[in-house]
Order: sequence, then structure tokens, then C-alpha cells
Amino acid sequence: MFKTLISTLKTRFPAETVSAHCDGPCGVYDPSSARIAAEAVVSMTKKLLDLEVPNPSDKDAVVKYHNTFSRYVQIKEEQAQITKDELLILWTDYFKPVHLEKYPDLHDTFWKAAKLCSASKVEVSLEHANELMAAVEKIHNMFWESKDRNVPWYKAS
Amino acid sequence: MFKTLISTLKTRFPAETVSAHCDGPCGVYDPSSARIAAEAVVSMTKKLLDLEVPNPSDKDAVVKYHNTFSRYVQIKEEQAQITKDELLILWTDYFKPVHLEKYPDLHDTFWKAAKLCSASKVEVSLEHANELMAAVEKIHNMFWESKDRNVPWYKAS
Amino acid sequence: MFKTLISTLKTRFPAETVSAHCDGPCGVYDPSSARIAAEAVVSMTKKLLDLEVPNPSDKDAVVKYHNTFSRYVQIKEEQAQITKDELLILWTDYFKPVHLEKYPDLHDTFWKAAKLCSASKVEVSLEHANELMAAVEKIHNMFWESKDRNVPWYKAS
Amino acid sequence: MFKTLISTLKTRFPAETVSAHCDGPCGVYDPSSARIAAEAVVSMTKKLLDLEVPNPSDKDAVVKYHNTFSRYVQIKEEQAQITKDELLILWTDYFKPVHLEKYPDLHDTFWKAAKLCSASKVEVSLEHANELMAAVEKIHNMFWESKDRNVPWYKAS
Amino acid sequence: MFKTLISTLKTRFPAETVSAHCDGPCGVYDPSSARIAAEAVVSMTKKLLDLEVPNPSDKDAVVKYHNTFSRYVQIKEEQAQITKDELLILWTDYFKPVHLEKYPDLHDTFWKAAKLCSASKVEVSLEHANELMAAVEKIHNMFWESKDRNVPWYKAS
Amino acid sequence: MFKTLISTLKTRFPAETVSAHCDGPCGVYDPSSARIAAEAVVSMTKKLLDLEVPNPSDKDAVVKYHNTFSRYVQIKEEQAQITKDELLILWTDYFKPVHLEKYPDLHDTFWKAAKLCSASKVEVSLEHANELMAAVEKIHNMFWESKDRNVPWYKAS
Repeated sequence: MFKTLISTLKTRFPAETVSAHCDGPCGVYDPSSARIAAEAVVSMTKKLLDLEVPNPSDKDAVVKYHNTFSRYVQIKEEQAQITKDELLILWTDYFKPVHLEKYPDLHDTFWKAAKLCSASKVEVSLEHANELMAAVEKIHNMFWESKDRNVPWYKAS
Repeated sequence: MFKTLISTLKTRFPAETVSAHCDGPCGVYDPSSARIAAEAVVSMTKKLLDLEVPNPSDKDAVVKYHNTFSRYVQIKEEQAQITKDELLILWTDYFKPVHLEKYPDLHDTFWKAAKLCSASKVEVSLEHANELMAAVEKIHNMFWESKDRNVPWYKAS
Repeated sequence: MFKTLISTLKTRFPAETVSAHCDGPCGVYDPSSARIAAEAVVSMTKKLLDLEVPNPSDKDAVVKYHNTFSRYVQIKEEQAQITKDELLILWTDYFKPVHLEKYPDLHDTFWKAAKLCSASKVEVSLEHANELMAAVEKIHNMFWESKDRNVPWYKAS
Repeated sequence: MFKTLISTLKTRFPAETVSAHCDGPCGVYDPSSARIAAEAVVSMTKKLLDLEVPNPSDKDAVVKYHNTFSRYVQIKEEQAQITKDELLILWTDYFKPVHLEKYPDLHDTFWKAAKLCSASKVEVSLEHANELMAAVEKIHNMFWESKDRNVPWYKAS
Repeated sequence: MFKTLISTLKTRFPAETVSAHCDGPCGVYDPSSARIAAEAVVSMTKKLLDLEVPNPSDKDAVVKYHNTFSRYVQIKEEQAQITKDELLILWTDYFKPVHLEKYPDLHDTFWKAAKLCSASKVEVSLEHANELMAAVEKIHNMFWESKDRNVPWYKAS
Repeated sequence: MFKTLISTLKTRFPAETVSAHCDGPCGVYDPSSARIAAEAVVSMTKKLLDLEVPNPSDKDAVVKYHNTFSRYVQIKEEQAQITKDELLILWTDYFKPVHLEKYPDLHDTFWKAAKLCSASKVEVSLEHANELMAAVEKIHNMFWESKDRNVPWYKAS
């Protein structure tokens, strides 16, 4: 059954049309979008873990702490969602059946990465945030290799 | 390698925690959200195909035609995106490694459905819109079966 | 005056055009969208009430508590807004003057339901969340009855 | 039944708490938000009606026409939705049962105005766009009167 | 260099085209949008500072406090962003090189106001929230003066 | 006056705090976000100019043309807005008074770039789309130079 579906997809999305940004298609895919958002997830996770819990009797410190904490959680949430969205655009729109033959763990790589995005929301875990970053780097390499281009990995932070 | 990743995922997301809406998690998954949006995609596709091309010299008709056409394309675009988003929430957050063993074509089913969402944007194709609806129905059945519940499929339109 | 306005509206939106999803119109209204979001509001409200307040000296527990609390409040906020939006689409786009004659408490039903959505944001009240769910069920029944269809009420959670 | 519901609402939302922006509540309601968006709806409607249909053989003119037409429809759509959202915030969050006694056509006024927002999307009708503007002005007057303030009506365009 | 760029801009955006809402353009600019959002920022800042820190052993009060605190931070965040967006629409789309000659501190005024929006998110500072309101009032006056209209400044709260 | 404002800003935002993504701040600024969106603007502009105007009597071709045209305009609109937003985040949040001394045309560079984003929406002009891309490249160089890092410019398309 797997085979049959792949054949059907290949007919619909032949290898030659591998080009697009979002589903225009406009040919402007770049895993940097996911990488930038994942960096923000790591940064917010670190900052949340570093925030000093205030003395409950120091009202100024309590207000400052909760304002900052609440905002960081919200930014972590948004950036983890952006990471997920950007990765899934690559999975659903850029990668085609012809790539699946070359990268048999394609589906699983993206499934795992997407689940790490959700885990980064649910938890404040530096370990999982770093695993997410590693998953994004793996996808960066897979993506540029599939286009026969050598774009070096770097981090903005 | 596939096996190893599944084992890792199983450890992190054991079968017992299979419950959630979005990634709260809050336990309120329902494929109806995807079905309603997919129905709108089918409806807009039909209406676009049915619109009568105006006589270029009839300015009132031209204005009316382009206002309607442009809006329907936009609604089709949005609803196809919602269908895609809602399906991918099921794939990334509801379905866990334990389900993959039961439904070995899980990844491919969602990949194909997501690609049909994009195709429904790019084209005005009743055939592909109907294939999308069939894919959503297949996922509806797979989902409720995985929860041992019998929720009948129906359409609102 | 009430009468006159209704007459005006009837002229503009006759009973025959009773069909549409959003304001396309595309004929795909379904109160399930509001029901799913309302279920999430109830779920988040329960989970917020169940969260155990951490010992202030246990930093790990404090971080985990505030991350979870802040996210649940945010999800409750969003889902209550979605419930409100979906209900108001039914009120402003689906229901027409001809329905108002049949359901004289139409306006009040929706006004009350919308105010319960706002109350569910402002408070963490299981009582009001349950009242919201009951209001959505009432609207579900009113809606399908107005279409002479029998769609059973169910909950996904 | 109407009476009973009003009594219930009055208990929950007494007159003293009449103050808020969105459902914070933060006390910053202002119908100007709806007025500005409604002005944009009128402006886009006029500009759409004024656009000269290009000669089909003049490709530059055709591209320019469709780019402009499509954008104006999209802006009209968004601004009509903003008008609707801003009006419904007033209806669902600002106005309370105590106001309904003073303004018995409160529900109908908002219902009609909301339906005019949808009509302004579906059509390119200057007549209905102007009716929408008149409805917003009526609500402006009702709103400020209910707060015993005299804020003059003006238009930015 | 500054001069040259201004000349280039003047050629592209001559003074006669000074009219537009968003970048339609539709000619419906109004600084009230920024003012309303800035008022909400001030209101939320005040309410956050006024919230009484609960006794950690009173679980009901703790839940109520954190629900309210988290929501107010989120509303402050959104409204500060709306203030920023609305101000930057004026700066990037309404104001043209011809205005820069009349208001040489145009850029700096908007830069400072935008930075105050960000500061209002990062902090819970009534001082900076009030400075933001003053910056919006300054822009209100500059804007209407540039159109030779006298629109009085008022606050809705 | 200019000087005074800069002094004030310097006190509030000293050079040492130059680090942040969005206004968390989280220290993850990267002009790639603007570059990717600007590439999509260029791509959509080219594709719009290349679309063949259909024969009005060929209904299938007419439907296909308008579906594609309308979507490309919409994607161009969104991506131009994203380019603008991402650039303005750099201007309002990353760049500080200390940078203004080093880059005296900072304000004008961003103002011009933002106006090119709006022009790319209003027009279908490859010339202005290319000017926008050049403006983004200039900002890329200015940004990384200000951080004493050498990140090479590349395009994904």
C-alpha cells in the first residue's frame, strides 16, 4: 500500500517541480526560518530556568517576575509553533516522493522534530530544546544536500 | 534506524498519555474541525467552477465577478490551510508511536492529505477537493477507531 | 421599530438564502466548531483548578507550575475566543429574520452565550464553563432543528 | 423567558461594572475602531467601482488592474471583518442588561450592523457601505450617550 | 547622502499622494487606533500594579491571581504591539519626504515611541506607559496639523 | 532637539543591552527572516508578470488564471508585509542610539526599505522588488557589521 501511494504522489508531484516557498509555489524554501525560531525557544528556555524566584513579600519583585515569566512562556510558545509550522511546510510542500527514496527516515525525522516542538511548549527543558535544535540542524543538512547546495549552518545568537 | 527512533519516541510519549486538544494537552481532539474546513474547500471549488464569466463590456458584471472570484479563492485558501493545520495537529500531537504500529501507513496518509490541501489551493479542481474529503473521512475513521469509539461520519453541507 | 427593522432585514436576507459557512457564503455551518472549543475551555478550567500550588522553595516545581499555568490560561483564552467567534458567525450569518420569528429568544440566547465566553476568560470557574457548554448544546439543537436535520450531540473529550 | 434571562444577566453583570476594553476588562471601549474600519470599507468600495476595466489586449494594464482589484477586495474584506469584530465587542462586552432596558432595539441594531458588514464583503455596493457607516454612527451616539459623554462624530477620510 | 535619499523618495512619493489607510492606499489614516491601544496599555499596567499578591496558602486566591495576572500581561503585550503597528503605519505609509522637511524630528519621534511600546511590554512601568501616551498625543497633533485639520485629543477611558 | 532625544534614549537603552529577538528580548536577531520574505516578493512579482492572459472564451483557462493571479497577489502582499515587519523589528528593537552614531543614515535606510515593501504591494514592479532586495542586503551587511560578525549573504531561490 505504501508503494502504491508513493506512485500516486510521484505522478502528481514529479521531481522536476521541486521548488517553492510556502505553497505558492515560489521556490524560496529556507530552513533558516525554523532555525531562527528554534534559537528563540532555546533562549527563552534558558532565561526561564535562570529567573530568580522572588521573595513573596517583595511586591515589586513579584510583579516583575510574573510579567517576565508570563511573557517568556508566551514567546517560547509562539516560537515553538513557528518552528513547527516552518518545518511542516518543508515536509508537506518541499519534500516529494522522489526525496523519500533517498531519505527513508524523512517522515520519522519530521514527526520527531514536530513532537519536540510540542514538548518545548509543555516543558521548560533545556535538554529537549537542544534536541530540537539538533533536529533542525539535521533537516538543514538534509534539505541543502537534496538541492546539491552547500549552505553552512550558523546560529544568530 | 527507524526502529530506534520509534523506541525513543515511545519512551517519551507512552500510550497512556494518548489524549489532548492542540498541545495543551487537554484531551479534546476531534477530526470534525478538519472535515468542516474541507467541506468549505469543496463548496468554494464548486462555486468557482460554476461562476459565469462576464461579458467584458458589462462593467457591473465584471466588478461583481472579480469581487466574488477573489473572495472565493481567498476562502478556499484559508479553509485549505485550516484543513491542513487541523490534520497536522492530529498527526503531530494525537498520534503516538503506539499507533504507528497499528497503522503502518499513518505517515503516508497524512503526508498525502496535506499535499492534497496544498493542491486544493494551487488548483480549482473538484477531483482533488473530493480526494481531500475522502482523505479526511479515512482519518476520521482511523482516529475514532484508535479511541475505540464509534462516531458516525456526517457532512454539514 | 423592532418590526420595521425585521421587515427590512427580511427583504435583504430572504429565507431561501439560508445556507453558508462563514460569510462566503458556502453553506457549511456546523456548531461543532463552537462545541470543540468550548470543550477545551472546560478542560483547561478543570486542569487549572487541579494544579497543585508548589512549595515556593522548590524552584523546579515553581518553574513547571508557572509554565503550565500560564499556558493553560492562554489556551483557555484562545478557545473561549474561538467559541465566541464561531457562535457569532451563526448569529450574524446563518440565522435570518425568518428564524427570529420561530426562535424569539434567539438574540438573548447568543448574547448570554457570548457573555459566558468572556466570563470563562475572566474567571477560572467550572460552573460558568459548564453553563457555556449547556448554551452551546442549546444552540446545537436550535440550529439543526432549523434545518430539519437530526444531528446527535456528542462530546470528543 | 426573556425577562428571566435578563434578570440572570443583571445579577452576573451589574451596572456598576460597565467599563472595559475587549474583555480584560480595562475600561477602554471606543467605537472609533469600528468607524475607522468602516471608512476603509466605504473607500475601497468606491475605488473598486471607479477602477477602469482594462483592454484585454493591454497586458500591462490587465496585470495592474487585477493586482489592484484583488488587493482592494482583500482590504475591503479585512476591514469589514474588523468593523464587525469591533462592533460585536461592544455588543457582547460593553453593553449590559441595564442598557437593554434603555435601548430596547439594542440587539437588532447590532444584528443589522453585523449583517451589513457581511453584505459589504459579498457585494461591491456603495449603498450598503453607506448604510453600514450610518449604523456605526448610530452606535457611536448610543454608546457615548450611555456613558453620559459627548464625543463628536467625525470622519478621518 | 541623506539629501539624495530624500530626493529619491520625493520623486517616488510626491506630496500630492499624501492620503491612505494602511497601504491600500484608501485615505483613512487616524491616530485614534494607536491612542485606544495605548490607553489599554496604561490601564493594564495600572491594574497589574494594583493586584494584591495572594497568601500562598489560599489556593482559590492564588488561582484567581495568576489567571488575572497572566491575562493582563497578555493584553498589555497585544495592545503595546497594536500601538506599535499603528504608529509604524503612519510613519511608513502616511508620512512622506515632504513632511520630513516640516518635521525634522519625525524619525526620532517614531523611533522613540516604538521603543516605548517595547518597554511597555518588558516592564510594568506606569512611568513609561504614560510617556508612551504622551508620545501618541504628540503624534496625534503632528498628524492632524499636517492635514490642516483640528481634531481634538480625547481619551476613552 | 535631535541630540537631546538621543541622549534620553541612550540612557534608557545603553549599548550593552544590544541583544534580542523580537522584544523578549532573547538575543536572536537575524536579517534572514526579512531576506526570505523579500525573495518571495521578487518571485511572486516575476511570476505575475509572466502569467499569460487567457482567451476570455476559454473558461477553464480563465478560472485557472484568476485563481493563480489572486493567490500570487495575496502571497506577495503577505510576504511584503513580513519583510516590513521583520525589518522594523530590527529598527525598533535591535538598533540602539549607539548605532545611530555609527550609521547616521540608519533611519532613512529603514524608512526607504519600508516604503519599498508598501510599493511592492501596490505595484507589480520587478524594478522596485529588486530595489527592496538590495535594501535588505544593505541592512544585512550593516547588521552583521554592527555585531562584528561576518555572515555571508546568500539567496535561497
